[in-house]
Amino acid sequence: MTNSAQAPEDFCEITPTANIGVTTHGGRAKCLQRLVRLDMPVPLTLALSFGAVKDIAEGRMPDTARMMASFGDAPLVCVRPSSQDPDWGGPRAVLNVGINDARHADLCKQIGEEAANVMYLRFVKEFAVHVARLDPDMFEAPKSDSAQALAHVLNAYELETDTPFPQDPAVQLAQVLRSMARAWDGTTARLLRSASGAPADAGLGLIVQKMALGVGPGESGSGRIHFVDAVSGKPAIVGRYTRQSQQHETEVPENTLYIGRDPRGPSFQDEVNDVFNELVDWSGILRQRLREEMQVEFTVEQGALCVLDAIRVQRSSRAGVAIAVALANDGIITRNDALLRTQPHALSELLHPQIDPSADRSVCARGIAASPGAATGRLVFDSATAQANAARGEASVLVRRETTPEDIRGMHAASAVLTEKGGVTSHAAVIARGLGVPCIVGATDIKIDSRKKQILTQDGRVLSEGETMTIDGTSGEILFGAAKMVEAAQDGAFRSLLSWADDVREIGVRANADTPADAAVAHNFEAEGIGLCRTEHMFFEQDRLTVMREMIFADSSADRHAALDRLLPMQRNDFIDLFDIMAGKPVCIRLFDLPLHEILPATREGLHDLAEALDRPLSEVTQRVDAISEFNPMLGMRGVRLGIEMPEIYVMQARAIFEAAIEMGRRGTPFVPEIMIPLVSAKREVELVKTQIDGVAAELRAHGASDFDYRLGVMVETPRAALRAGDIAMNASFLSFGTNDLTQMTYGLSRDDAGRFMSGYVQKSVFPEDPFHMLDHEGVGELMEIGAARARAARPNIVLSMCGEHGGNPESIAFCCAAGFDYVSCSPFRVPVARLAAAHLAISQK
Amino acid sequence: MTNSAQAPEDFCEITPTANIGVTTHGGRAKCLQRLVRLDMPVPLTLALSFGAVKDIAEGRMPDTARMMASFGDAPLVCVRPSSQDPDWGGPRAVLNVGINDARHADLCKQIGEEAANVMYLRFVKEFAVHVARLDPDMFEAPKSDSAQALAHVLNAYELETDTPFPQDPAVQLAQVLRSMARAWDGTTARLLRSASGAPADAGLGLIVQKMALGVGPGESGSGRIHFVDAVSGKPAIVGRYTRQSQQHETEVPENTLYIGRDPRGPSFQDEVNDVFNELVDWSGILRQRLREEMQVEFTVEQGALCVLDAIRVQRSSRAGVAIAVALANDGIITRNDALLRTQPHALSELLHPQIDPSADRSVCARGIAASPGAATGRLVFDSATAQANAARGEASVLVRRETTPEDIRGMHAASAVLTEKGGVTSHAAVIARGLGVPCIVGATDIKIDSRKKQILTQDGRVLSEGETMTIDGTSGEILFGAAKMVEAAQDGAFRSLLSWADDVREIGVRANADTPADAAVAHNFEAEGIGLCRTEHMFFEQDRLTVMREMIFADSSADRHAALDRLLPMQRNDFIDLFDIMAGKPVCIRLFDLPLHEILPATREGLHDLAEALDRPLSEVTQRVDAISEFNPMLGMRGVRLGIEMPEIYVMQARAIFEAAIEMGRRGTPFVPEIMIPLVSAKREVELVKTQIDGVAAELRAHGASDFDYRLGVMVETPRAALRAGDIAMNASFLSFGTNDLTQMTYGLSRDDAGRFMSGYVQKSVFPEDPFHMLDHEGVGELMEIGAARARAARPNIVLSMCGEHGGNPESIAFCCAAGFDYVSCSPFRVPVARLAAAHLAISQK
Repeated sequence: MTNSAQAPEDFCEITPTANIGVTTHGGRAKCLQRLVRLDMPVPLTLALSFGAVKDIAEGRMPDTARMMASFGDAPLVCVRPSSQDPDWGGPRAVLNVGINDARHADLCKQIGEEAANVMYLRFVKEFAVHVARLDPDMFEAPKSDSAQALAHVLNAYELETDTPFPQDPAVQLAQVLRSMARAWDGTTARLLRSASGAPADAGLGLIVQKMALGVGPGESGSGRIHFVDAVSGKPAIVGRYTRQSQQHETEVPENTLYIGRDPRGPSFQDEVNDVFNELVDWSGILRQRLREEMQVEFTVEQGALCVLDAIRVQRSSRAGVAIAVALANDGIITRNDALLRTQPHALSELLHPQIDPSADRSVCARGIAASPGAATGRLVFDSATAQANAARGEASVLVRRETTPEDIRGMHAASAVLTEKGGVTSHAAVIARGLGVPCIVGATDIKIDSRKKQILTQDGRVLSEGETMTIDGTSGEILFGAAKMVEAAQDGAFRSLLSWADDVREIGVRANADTPADAAVAHNFEAEGIGLCRTEHMFFEQDRLTVMREMIFADSSADRHAALDRLLPMQRNDFIDLFDIMAGKPVCIRLFDLPLHEILPATREGLHDLAEALDRPLSEVTQRVDAISEFNPMLGMRGVRLGIEMPEIYVMQARAIFEAAIEMGRRGTPFVPEIMIPLVSAKREVELVKTQIDGVAAELRAHGASDFDYRLGVMVETPRAALRAGDIAMNASFLSFGTNDLTQMTYGLSRDDAGRFMSGYVQKSVFPEDPFHMLDHEGVGELMEIGAARARAARPNIVLSMCGEHGGNPESIAFCCAAGFDYVSCSPFRVPVARLAAAHLAISQK
Repeated sequence: MTNSAQAPEDFCEITPTANIGVTTHGGRAKCLQRLVRLDMPVPLTLALSFGAVKDIAEGRMPDTARMMASFGDAPLVCVRPSSQDPDWGGPRAVLNVGINDARHADLCKQIGEEAANVMYLRFVKEFAVHVARLDPDMFEAPKSDSAQALAHVLNAYELETDTPFPQDPAVQLAQVLRSMARAWDGTTARLLRSASGAPADAGLGLIVQKMALGVGPGESGSGRIHFVDAVSGKPAIVGRYTRQSQQHETEVPENTLYIGRDPRGPSFQDEVNDVFNELVDWSGILRQRLREEMQVEFTVEQGALCVLDAIRVQRSSRAGVAIAVALANDGIITRNDALLRTQPHALSELLHPQIDPSADRSVCARGIAASPGAATGRLVFDSATAQANAARGEASVLVRRETTPEDIRGMHAASAVLTEKGGVTSHAAVIARGLGVPCIVGATDIKIDSRKKQILTQDGRVLSEGETMTIDGTSGEILFGAAKMVEAAQDGAFRSLLSWADDVREIGVRANADTPADAAVAHNFEAEGIGLCRTEHMFFEQDRLTVMREMIFADSSADRHAALDRLLPMQRNDFIDLFDIMAGKPVCIRLFDLPLHEILPATREGLHDLAEALDRPLSEVTQRVDAISEFNPMLGMRGVRLGIEMPEIYVMQARAIFEAAIEMGRRGTPFVPEIMIPLVSAKREVELVKTQIDGVAAELRAHGASDFDYRLGVMVETPRAALRAGDIAMNASFLSFGTNDLTQMTYGLSRDDAGRFMSGYVQKSVFPEDPFHMLDHEGVGELMEIGAARARAARPNIVLSMCGEHGGNPESIAFCCAAGFDYVSCSPFRVPVARLAAAHLAISQK
């Protein structure tokens, strides 16, 4: 029955035992308490809680006279924000609160008139502009350390407000606190922090700290220091120190001493050796106890160190990985902590060269960032020129209105790709990500004139073939000329981190890889296998394309066989190469899935060449090509439909796969290939293809082939296949959800055509996100859940996976984990992201 | 403990009390028992059950001596099949069993030598060919009533078999029975009856009937008679009678008397008046007691009538309706029975002219029967010629490789449509069914050369513009020249039957109707409203098309408004016309849903005309048209996506609909239009459009329009809309499942492109049926059930319907009833079928 409810404490002194929390007083207050607990030389500091600051904003002021009194006789203080997360921002700090005519007079004696003038003048200006909200132009003084300048600003203040400049330190502090509390509620501040992920009710704390002067007699000054390289993350002592200065100067004055031996000037280490050593001593303790690389803000007052603040060192993604791994290796944090400190998306920056963050950017236009990384090259408008440039060792940016399978060779040869049409899952985007080539699609701001070989920008500039441009596929920016680059960074720390990720993650990660080059990347990034090998890309090399076309034009099954017999050894070698590179890891081969007409030429020249190659009249070739064209190729005769209509293709592929497996066995590295049937919508389709393929295997065995094994599965990419997964599973040892097509069909939305309106749709929040980019859990996801449940009910040990473009997204991986999938498969360059994301998920679920 | 298990009765006499059933002894045996019960003069008849016949086939013979003995002294008998359903067929009857040398000698005395020779000879031949399976050529006799001829065949028999012709009647009967029992198990018989829907284990009964001779002294002969016209179903006495003949003559001998005063010969009525009167007396009793129009097979033996058999009169679909309605009107059967006796599909024959079933057919090629009915006309290869012919009153058959929206005017003007490409739900098929124009699509046997205006048939014939052809859209046959036609028959009986159907059915039937002409057909067929009015067809008239194109080319919202302002009054009048025709019945208007590029010209000439109309350079127009072309238009910017991207179109349409409703109110016939949003995949799409449309209504009301009401709903045609129906229902007062698109997207299969392989797929049983033709219950159906359940959970009073092409199928109607839908909507010409199918369903569920 004691009256324990006291009036809430408006403020408290930051002591080792004070009740200070990140969620009540903000990160800066909490960090300062940690410094105090380490017994660092921190000036006396008071903290105002989120609640106290909210009260202030609403007019309930704390006892500022009592606050000022805590600091002793005639103190100067500074006020700084302390939000929960430093990224959420906050109002700017105000220094020298408490200065007035009397204190100024004292300071003149103590530190000299000029320095005293600068301090008073600084406060009056800041107060006038940021607290009293007066016009900054009024407070421009001729020379900022003269008595005349000080008189000018004090006078200007009185003129503008009709009151003298407040002399009572308690009044000054009250007004500063109110101004900062209210700024937190301004629209701009709200928008900015909301963009950084702050909740709408994020609170602000404030700290009031006794000023350490940094100006005056003896060694005095202020600086900041940290002990790690912000770009590489390697140990390094970096910072600067300015004599006779107060903290928070933005410009670097001339009397600055660089920390770390810098050619630009004399060294802090040499000049102020005691303080430097003291800081270095503290650095180890800080890193150990705060479990982070910190930047320390400090003041030297007559030779004595004061630590004012410490914040997490800003760093590049690469440095982030290096720091986290070093902390874990030193036993300061756990490996799981190190994993959680790296955002999966940040890893993509390390896989490709990037534009140097500090470089100038001359932006010409913007498009959709479709494949990360940056590259510079000469503009080319066709694949042949890109290949010719590559032969001369010259980098190209391949520019097309949209790409078709005929451009694949050019995309291989180019350093970057730019298209006017398309979305994140358009042909150009998918292929570029697979190749790891930077790519921008849907750049509707520019007009591409392929005939004139020119790009027309929105502001009327014309860029012609051969001019140099830079494509930033990470940001979607198209830049004029060359840009300074930062190289890719898959160093030891990167590999360590990912191996720790593999130790904890619970879902498999494979790569989508079509070619030996893709497979090599996948293997390098330690994918656990190939989850999707699209065989149709194997047919685009010129010699094969011609044979493929002959096959399509064959009038009989026998003629088709003759053409396919020529493709068989090529396919077999493709598979041997792939199996070899993957060194025993599983490879899932999707049978041919391309609308036939995509193999055929689209241009007049192409038709002419084809007619010549086939030795048939142009008119006949044109008519045949026309006859197999489709209104909606995506919904036409492709995948298993073609496999059933022209069984010879799948038979040849199965034979090539089996013969490759037999060859691997002969070499002493036996291999069990996985064969996947695309675009299934009915159980019977699977039965028919299974019969064909089992037949090929039986025939090979009957003809004395050494024994081999294989697994047959189905790619679930139509809504019906998901709904009928129970039936389909009866003949499939695995199901892989192809979320690109499944999304297309669930929405009734072509990924190639969605680009035209998707950005508008997302802007209007019609779709919360582009469903080709972020898996739609509500629609597509429900079909996947239904499919997974039915498949497992029919065949409990069935292997389930996702192999669409979504496979590398942390959100999709979370979905697949929750649905109990065995693995995800994504483009090779997403494998590290997926491995880390899967680890995050496993840790967060523990 | 009595020994009640007797040896199974091998055969029994057909008496009024014998235990004879359709499922044990077959339809003929049962019908004969009914005749016996009516006390008709039926000769003594024995029946063998299915089991007994099966025993015979397996070699367990009945006591044929005892059977023959039942018929008294030296009888002649005939054996006929009695399968459960007459459509399932059976072996041919065998007459004169029991004849031998001795009986032949008796007959020579009794009926004369020639007649006796004919009878013996007939039996020997039938026995030799059909029982002993000897070569028919051996049994050709020079003159079939001569003793020489008889000797010839008896001799031939002995030569071939090395045994004399069997003289024991019991042996003859045993062999005949065994032969017929075994024939039933033959492959051909199995296949034939399986095609008529017989189960694999269908049984055969046999009847053995004492012969009434029909030859001999006095008035003797045989004939058949029925009392209804087989084509019209109206009362009429029809048949034929041949003196001195036995039943089952296939050719009509010269001494035939036609029944019913026939110009071809003397009349039975005049010549054999007593028997005629007796038959007419029996006819009324038969109709009353057998509750069916029967054909009676009879023999006159020395002036006395013997009734041998009675079967259901074969009839046209039209006669079937007339007979059923007459029986119900006479109180002989119930109205429900009358409904059940008419197959819904049979009604389609009555809605369109058909090729006379008796006419010769000179088939040129076959395609997919896409819109029922038949028409003759001159070949034309473009819409303009079809319109020109129509202006001269001349019928055309419009031939196109495939139709596009630009062909709609031509299809209106043509009498029939033929396309080389496409499936049952291709553009041509859908439009033709809507118009009621006979149509064949996917006629891949022929090659159409539009430039030369010629058709090339598979056997090398060339048909040129202006030649006459006939299109049978019911069978899919393309005929050379003109064919004899039977007119459409929507007579009183047709209307009575459908009004009875309306009395019992429990699900609503609306029509899909886009134009006033469609609406008039829908109203004529008593649809309960329009369930789907596709407004895009309203934009294909030349004057509107130009304005629509101007709208598409407009650079600003203001310019788009200007173009749409010109379309507004046209649209308003469209809707006033529709509302007027439907006379207060509901009309559900689907907002514009067409890929923009479909409105644009596809040909070089069209582009040129457009450039002229718009007064812009051809190059610009070509480029713009190219820029909005899509890879997969079906999955592109159409439906609600266009409505959100260019809101002006939907705003104009809503305004036109509301202004039309206001005008109806002004005329004293207030009207509540239904507005439907197409191609929805997310709830927010509905919210945005609803906001727009409610805004238009609010604006009209604010500007003093008299009050009006409307309902807003959603067309569910993407799998996602079905899955998210719960969300979507929050803003929709009705949901209509568009099963065409829903099927497309569930299967990932374009209806326009499926034609190329669908028949192969169905042949190989990959799909049990074309899912565009027969609703796929397992996949598409499950999505509909999910959607319906979720929509109702969110909004219990929501109105649910189906408006795809499946809407008129009895199977789909059953599905919709089971799912608790409120109505189905189908093309106007399917409305009668749907009304009857719904009635069948309601009756069968009682």
